[in-house]
Amino acid sequence: MKSFPTTLLNGYRNFMSGRYVAERERYRVLADQGQKPHTLVIACCDSRAAPETIFDAGPGELFVVRNVANMVPPYEPDGQYHSTSAALEFAVQALRVKDIIVMGHGRCGGIGAALDPNAEPLSPGDFIGKWMGLVRTAAEQIQGNSVMTTTERQTALERISIRNSIANLRTFPCVKILEERGKIQIHGAWFDIANGELWVMDPQSKDFVRLEA
Amino acid sequence: MKSFPTTLLNGYRNFMSGRYVAERERYRVLADQGQKPHTLVIACCDSRAAPETIFDAGPGELFVVRNVANMVPPYEPDGQYHSTSAALEFAVQALRVKDIIVMGHGRCGGIGAALDPNAEPLSPGDFIGKWMGLVRTAAEQIQGNSVMTTTERQTALERISIRNSIANLRTFPCVKILEERGKIQIHGAWFDIANGELWVMDPQSKDFVRLEA
Amino acid sequence: MKSFPTTLLNGYRNFMSGRYVAERERYRVLADQGQKPHTLVIACCDSRAAPETIFDAGPGELFVVRNVANMVPPYEPDGQYHSTSAALEFAVQALRVKDIIVMGHGRCGGIGAALDPNAEPLSPGDFIGKWMGLVRTAAEQIQGNSVMTTTERQTALERISIRNSIANLRTFPCVKILEERGKIQIHGAWFDIANGELWVMDPQSKDFVRLEA
Amino acid sequence: MKSFPTTLLNGYRNFMSGRYVAERERYRVLADQGQKPHTLVIACCDSRAAPETIFDAGPGELFVVRNVANMVPPYEPDGQYHSTSAALEFAVQALRVKDIIVMGHGRCGGIGAALDPNAEPLSPGDFIGKWMGLVRTAAEQIQGNSVMTTTERQTALERISIRNSIANLRTFPCVKILEERGKIQIHGAWFDIANGELWVMDPQSKDFVRLEA
Repeated sequence: MKSFPTTLLNGYRNFMSGRYVAERERYRVLADQGQKPHTLVIACCDSRAAPETIFDAGPGELFVVRNVANMVPPYEPDGQYHSTSAALEFAVQALRVKDIIVMGHGRCGGIGAALDPNAEPLSPGDFIGKWMGLVRTAAEQIQGNSVMTTTERQTALERISIRNSIANLRTFPCVKILEERGKIQIHGAWFDIANGELWVMDPQSKDFVRLEA
Repeated sequence: MKSFPTTLLNGYRNFMSGRYVAERERYRVLADQGQKPHTLVIACCDSRAAPETIFDAGPGELFVVRNVANMVPPYEPDGQYHSTSAALEFAVQALRVKDIIVMGHGRCGGIGAALDPNAEPLSPGDFIGKWMGLVRTAAEQIQGNSVMTTTERQTALERISIRNSIANLRTFPCVKILEERGKIQIHGAWFDIANGELWVMDPQSKDFVRLEA
Repeated sequence: MKSFPTTLLNGYRNFMSGRYVAERERYRVLADQGQKPHTLVIACCDSRAAPETIFDAGPGELFVVRNVANMVPPYEPDGQYHSTSAALEFAVQALRVKDIIVMGHGRCGGIGAALDPNAEPLSPGDFIGKWMGLVRTAAEQIQGNSVMTTTERQTALERISIRNSIANLRTFPCVKILEERGKIQIHGAWFDIANGELWVMDPQSKDFVRLEA
Repeated sequence: MKSFPTTLLNGYRNFMSGRYVAERERYRVLADQGQKPHTLVIACCDSRAAPETIFDAGPGELFVVRNVANMVPPYEPDGQYHSTSAALEFAVQALRVKDIIVMGHGRCGGIGAALDPNAEPLSPGDFIGKWMGLVRTAAEQIQGNSVMTTTERQTALERISIRNSIANLRTFPCVKILEERGKIQIHGAWFDIANGELWVMDPQSKDFVRLEA
């Protein structure tokens, strides 16, 4: 297939001659018996923050939703298409995952756009503008804060947005009930691209605490 | 953070003591200079089909959207939240990716649900039911097809859905224009979990052809 | 001296039989030739953040001002007593220090009081209330921020206050001129009592960056 | 952080690899539970007279105010910033310290300036001149005393200034009341940099008596 990007083609061949050889049987079993991932990760599309890489995860482990700024919208049982809500419903109701991780990261372009008072729509559809509207209220509180640096505002909103998504997760009846029954644990995490640090949200204080690597 | 899943914690520590050591500088540069991924991959949430794994991709290479059944909805510039459209807009307009891959795979749970005439809503919200409505018309044609086996119907719809998403991609003015100008290439791919095969869509015939590994 | 606290008496005897023995000559020389400290540290009175301890500094090294929340007021050449301004003037003009460090720390009681909307005066004089007025404007911006946790607001104001003090330092003509001539360097630092981390302010971005210990 | 002074950086690393290792848990507890220092020390900024060093004190023991010549101004409940009064109020009213030490030392630069009839302002603001005005009356008496040597005059004013600060301490209603109730003890001390001697004020006679080391 000449038109297929060479980089990906080479990458695929590395996979087949490398990792796949060791995991051939695991893939076969996962194909026959179906997937039983233990964890749902809601992560960002960012090319620097792939959950499988950061958690060194193999096939079958993580069911992964990736959207801009790793956000979960509130429960809206209307007639619309809801990509993230559909994935959440599938992971929780069909796959019965035990843990849900909302995983953000530093230098997030979506969060940056939400904080930029002069941000222009990227296209007439302004899909990013609308999508980032999920954190508009918080963004406005942080945006107006002239005493924090740009980086401090960015990091603050990245973490606030994780807490916001976790709050939205709990507006889904199936999540709320299963969490109350102790069937599901919800976690927040923030990855620092610059130095590889992983910060995890304390369930009580909601603060983010750096993990010892 | 006691409550954080041990599997992920250990995985993260493997990452830090392994791969990260070799890529420390790459992460630092990607943090300082920002991401410039060459490719947008629209993939499935399935735990067995992570693009970074299959394409052996490192940090900074792939901007990845993951939703159930790797679908792209049509262009709908309304007031709603559109997770996938927002990611598409960001990848094309802000990051200027050169290639877009719609990547499906075998044994897709979403496609299976779309083909199951007796599928029940997974929750009162029926988010999966609505989301899979994106391939309803095609699904109905395949569903009624009694001369194909279950597996043939499944594989057929998985590939039809990829073509459907590629058609939807072209309803986005920014994608259409940039493709016409030769600035963007759109590709279809299908990964066979059972044996690791990657099948790529022929741009002319739209058939899926197995890559020689 | 029976009334003198036993703890301090014992501590002094430890000093004389321990460290002083090794530094006897150093003290004698410092007495004869006078002090020539290389650095002025403006630190907090907090019992957990003594600069000599954190920087493992011996006699003669650090000229140390300590007030609540390690603050520097703006230049006010009026008829009043200005404790901090007097110490600053003495360090810069008489001792010719080369570096000035404004050193804050986590869990600062003064900053906590400034952020507490229900803080009562500690005495009719309300000296703390007036003193913390030096960061009132910033405190109000942070206080109103309902999307950050208590700890996030506290840490943010601790760091903002350091930047604020550094800005006030530069309102002193002698500091401004000597800094412009490259005779003095001004630095910000923040000590995390909980884990011993020292975070240092980046002169360009004004962000605080953790030092590798 | 390249610009941060190497001496301090090395000192901090000594602290972390040395003393901190032994006191890690103590710092953690002091962070979680807050500080409860038993003593307030009002000391001089002088680089040769750090209270933590002289009293061999660890984290959490001493709440330390340091200004030029370890002085306490009289109670002035006006609208001004009062650095020392604020620290005093916080130590007595919020932290409930049991002992207050006003600690002077030999070779004090501030006292020397107060005794020098030809002292020039160090800057147009003359902050030291105004601050030392707190002992002007006493200084004038000693200054004119031609039968004492320079060193005798210096030592005399250093000790007079300690008594003067103790008298000012008692103009603060909260200090006066708590001392009368036996909740607080006030002490004077004078450290001789040249030979490490600590001289303590006799509460009755107000004389300074050398401690046996």
